[in-house]
Amino acid sequence: MKSSTSRIEVTLGELARRTQAELEGDGGIRITGAAPIDKAQPGDITFIANPRYLKYLETTRASAVVLDKEVPRPEIAALRHTNPYLTFAHIIDILYPDETEVPVGVDKSAVIERGASISEKACIGPLCHIREGASVGEGSRLVSSVYLGRNVKIGKDCLIYPGVHIMDGCTLGNNVIVHSSTVIGSDGFGFAESESGLKKIKQIGWVEIEDDVEIGSNCSIDRGALGPTRIGAGTKIDNLVQIAHNVEIGRSCIIVSQVGISGSTKLGNGVVLAGQVGIIGHLDLGDGVMVGAQSGVAKSVPAGKKVFGSPARDITETKRIEVALTRLPELLKRVKKIEDKLSD
Amino acid sequence: MKSSTSRIEVTLGELARRTQAELEGDGGIRITGAAPIDKAQPGDITFIANPRYLKYLETTRASAVVLDKEVPRPEIAALRHTNPYLTFAHIIDILYPDETEVPVGVDKSAVIERGASISEKACIGPLCHIREGASVGEGSRLVSSVYLGRNVKIGKDCLIYPGVHIMDGCTLGNNVIVHSSTVIGSDGFGFAESESGLKKIKQIGWVEIEDDVEIGSNCSIDRGALGPTRIGAGTKIDNLVQIAHNVEIGRSCIIVSQVGISGSTKLGNGVVLAGQVGIIGHLDLGDGVMVGAQSGVAKSVPAGKKVFGSPARDITETKRIEVALTRLPELLKRVKKIEDKLSD
Amino acid sequence: MKSSTSRIEVTLGELARRTQAELEGDGGIRITGAAPIDKAQPGDITFIANPRYLKYLETTRASAVVLDKEVPRPEIAALRHTNPYLTFAHIIDILYPDETEVPVGVDKSAVIERGASISEKACIGPLCHIREGASVGEGSRLVSSVYLGRNVKIGKDCLIYPGVHIMDGCTLGNNVIVHSSTVIGSDGFGFAESESGLKKIKQIGWVEIEDDVEIGSNCSIDRGALGPTRIGAGTKIDNLVQIAHNVEIGRSCIIVSQVGISGSTKLGNGVVLAGQVGIIGHLDLGDGVMVGAQSGVAKSVPAGKKVFGSPARDITETKRIEVALTRLPELLKRVKKIEDKLSD
Repeated sequence: MKSSTSRIEVTLGELARRTQAELEGDGGIRITGAAPIDKAQPGDITFIANPRYLKYLETTRASAVVLDKEVPRPEIAALRHTNPYLTFAHIIDILYPDETEVPVGVDKSAVIERGASISEKACIGPLCHIREGASVGEGSRLVSSVYLGRNVKIGKDCLIYPGVHIMDGCTLGNNVIVHSSTVIGSDGFGFAESESGLKKIKQIGWVEIEDDVEIGSNCSIDRGALGPTRIGAGTKIDNLVQIAHNVEIGRSCIIVSQVGISGSTKLGNGVVLAGQVGIIGHLDLGDGVMVGAQSGVAKSVPAGKKVFGSPARDITETKRIEVALTRLPELLKRVKKIEDKLSD
Repeated sequence: MKSSTSRIEVTLGELARRTQAELEGDGGIRITGAAPIDKAQPGDITFIANPRYLKYLETTRASAVVLDKEVPRPEIAALRHTNPYLTFAHIIDILYPDETEVPVGVDKSAVIERGASISEKACIGPLCHIREGASVGEGSRLVSSVYLGRNVKIGKDCLIYPGVHIMDGCTLGNNVIVHSSTVIGSDGFGFAESESGLKKIKQIGWVEIEDDVEIGSNCSIDRGALGPTRIGAGTKIDNLVQIAHNVEIGRSCIIVSQVGISGSTKLGNGVVLAGQVGIIGHLDLGDGVMVGAQSGVAKSVPAGKKVFGSPARDITETKRIEVALTRLPELLKRVKKIEDKLSD
Repeated sequence: MKSSTSRIEVTLGELARRTQAELEGDGGIRITGAAPIDKAQPGDITFIANPRYLKYLETTRASAVVLDKEVPRPEIAALRHTNPYLTFAHIIDILYPDETEVPVGVDKSAVIERGASISEKACIGPLCHIREGASVGEGSRLVSSVYLGRNVKIGKDCLIYPGVHIMDGCTLGNNVIVHSSTVIGSDGFGFAESESGLKKIKQIGWVEIEDDVEIGSNCSIDRGALGPTRIGAGTKIDNLVQIAHNVEIGRSCIIVSQVGISGSTKLGNGVVLAGQVGIIGHLDLGDGVMVGAQSGVAKSVPAGKKVFGSPARDITETKRIEVALTRLPELLKRVKKIEDKLSD
């Protein structure tokens, strides 16, 4: 399949070997691309992770397919694995190897202040601005127009896309990815009422981002008022997400687009927030909590619980209310009828 | 009226001629600006497209007004047209001609990589960064600090505002406008669960934007995971909108601010999404579907249908439920009363 | 406490004197930082503004605490003031004095067009682009990569963070703070239907921002279609907020993250919009109106009123409906039971 990046050619047998999948069919088939099952062409490998795509298995033009162990043998060659989606992810990595984002070294149009410390193996693209006391670790890449404030620390092998702004004192671990136009370390929103209007509470904290975090584009992650705002290792954040001051997010959380988390709220590990969720401040969401799309969370949620709705309630309760709601207009009439009957 | 741009002086007769409107009154009146009816000054032309502004017709200080054919003759001069709002739009174009955003040629502070292809009639403003394999067509203007990734294609007569980031392999047609800080082609949000945490699915697709599309500021439009994310010709997108990977949007859609569309969802032509709407992934919204503000769409919607609410239902059903809801607290009491009566 | 900025050492007596607080205990104690009560260390000063933190008063390691006049005398030294939070805000200012964001003068990597007017006492950081006719007042600081369009006016002592884009003709008063990646003056979203599709209404207005306004990161504030979009003095706006064309916001309003305000809506003074609120166009919200989180406001709201919900209603009505809703599924059963009884 066409792609935005270059690709290489690999035999199916080689893919089986490298992904520890079980080969079913001709291992000599040459694979040159990966594609969804309904769009794949000869030379492509595809996958089925969701049973509703099984219907395409007979008609796909793909040369091979990644399947779990349950699906009956298809006409085309197959790789079998207990986790087909993960296997397919590894195959994409093999077929479409990373390109050099930007050459090693500092582009001559970048502005590097005195006292910045940049690894010789880091890549600093054009028009970046790196301030005094900031440091960039080995293998980290700042693609273009990235701003690092004073004393910002970037670990190893990070990938920072164009137009990211990281403000004074914030720290990123290793293997962190940040997409374009995201702001890390803007001031938290804190004001005290005074006779002459709203008095700004100076925000003297910072942001700490642990290893293997990925943050989407156009996100705002505010610095703590006092102390850190923290994002735990392996957590993944989508685009246009708001994370307020002193929020603490655990490990391996999934935070979908346009979520807003208010100040000082704490998320445990493995929390999933679907799109457009809002959470008020000073709450605790326990490990493994799942919050449905557009929910408004106004109370703490114990570990493992699924909540949904605005206001968020136990998901089964919200679903029951939703169904009941569709019967409400009719219910009003029924009650009227009963009343009429009783007043006869 | 004061404006952020310069303007010229035209007679009312000339405006009538150039917009094919019917002149009522003195064609020699000199028009020097356009303004809302309640703020217009002598020399201004104004318009009425919405009947609720008719009340201002007697007191407006405007020198002329654009009206439809139904409104009785006002005291001031008028231009009559079946579509007064469209006519007024044309008049603004005449009174306030485009200024040169940026001179033709490449500013010396821009960074142009080898192998980029820039039309001699394109305008590349200061501090832009254009990467290898990227191309910019005739008449296209990159105002300032625009980033074009590798192999990005920009058609003719596009206007790209400061701080826009367009990532590798994305394509724009002709006459596309993109406002500041918008990101086109950031990675889609795709991860597979693995024993060692969430494994990134490498996003190797791209974004295709057709002719005459306008995209607001601070939008995030993700590249396809495999294959394109697509925005059809003439579609208009407001600010802070999230468009996830592999979304396909038809022609002439209107997508208002802060909408979020999840992955692989397809919109037909002429779809209207009001502000803050969220749509889950893998749905189909048919041609002409209209979705009310803040709705949460969790099911596909057939062509021509209007839906509203979270969860989105047929708009008349949602409105009926909303009205019924205001009577619910009282209904509880009424039912209690019936029960008491029956248990007597 | 650790911070992203440097700090100084002050005696408690000195803090009492400078904040006009009443000293209780040893004025000679040396204070070197400020911290929340549950995280403070010896040398830190802390505060209690919310009674639910009183429980930490016995165990805090802080050297001193700011309290209101009601709380009984604690074991540690205290400063008494009727507004402890405001007092604490002043103490932070004292302990953590402002650092120079950027040196006075114009960085040599900035691009300044002819006819721009920059105070000799302004600070223009690297990679900024300032266009013809723009002006920057005394003491204003453009940290890095800031874009000022033609004829933009920036008053005195403004602080503009990296990556802010301010488009042609917009004006900022004095002491305005704008955080990274915010766009001021992008085009409003206006189109007229025509036979050949949606015709853009050229947006010839501007944005006026009065003194002492603070605007968060990744906000979009559109220019007026005709005339201004206006933000009144002392108003504070959080991150990722959408303000559409011709919106007028009064003084000292608080607008929390991810709010969207549609075109031509007017807010009085002291209006508070909580997170993720949406307001449709052409409404009036009177002075002191408060809107709860995630509300959708579809009607004008008179001064002083608190509304909540989507659609927004009087807050007590919405809360009553919310409680009643939890009883709705059971109510359906109760009514069925009554009907069965009556049909016996």
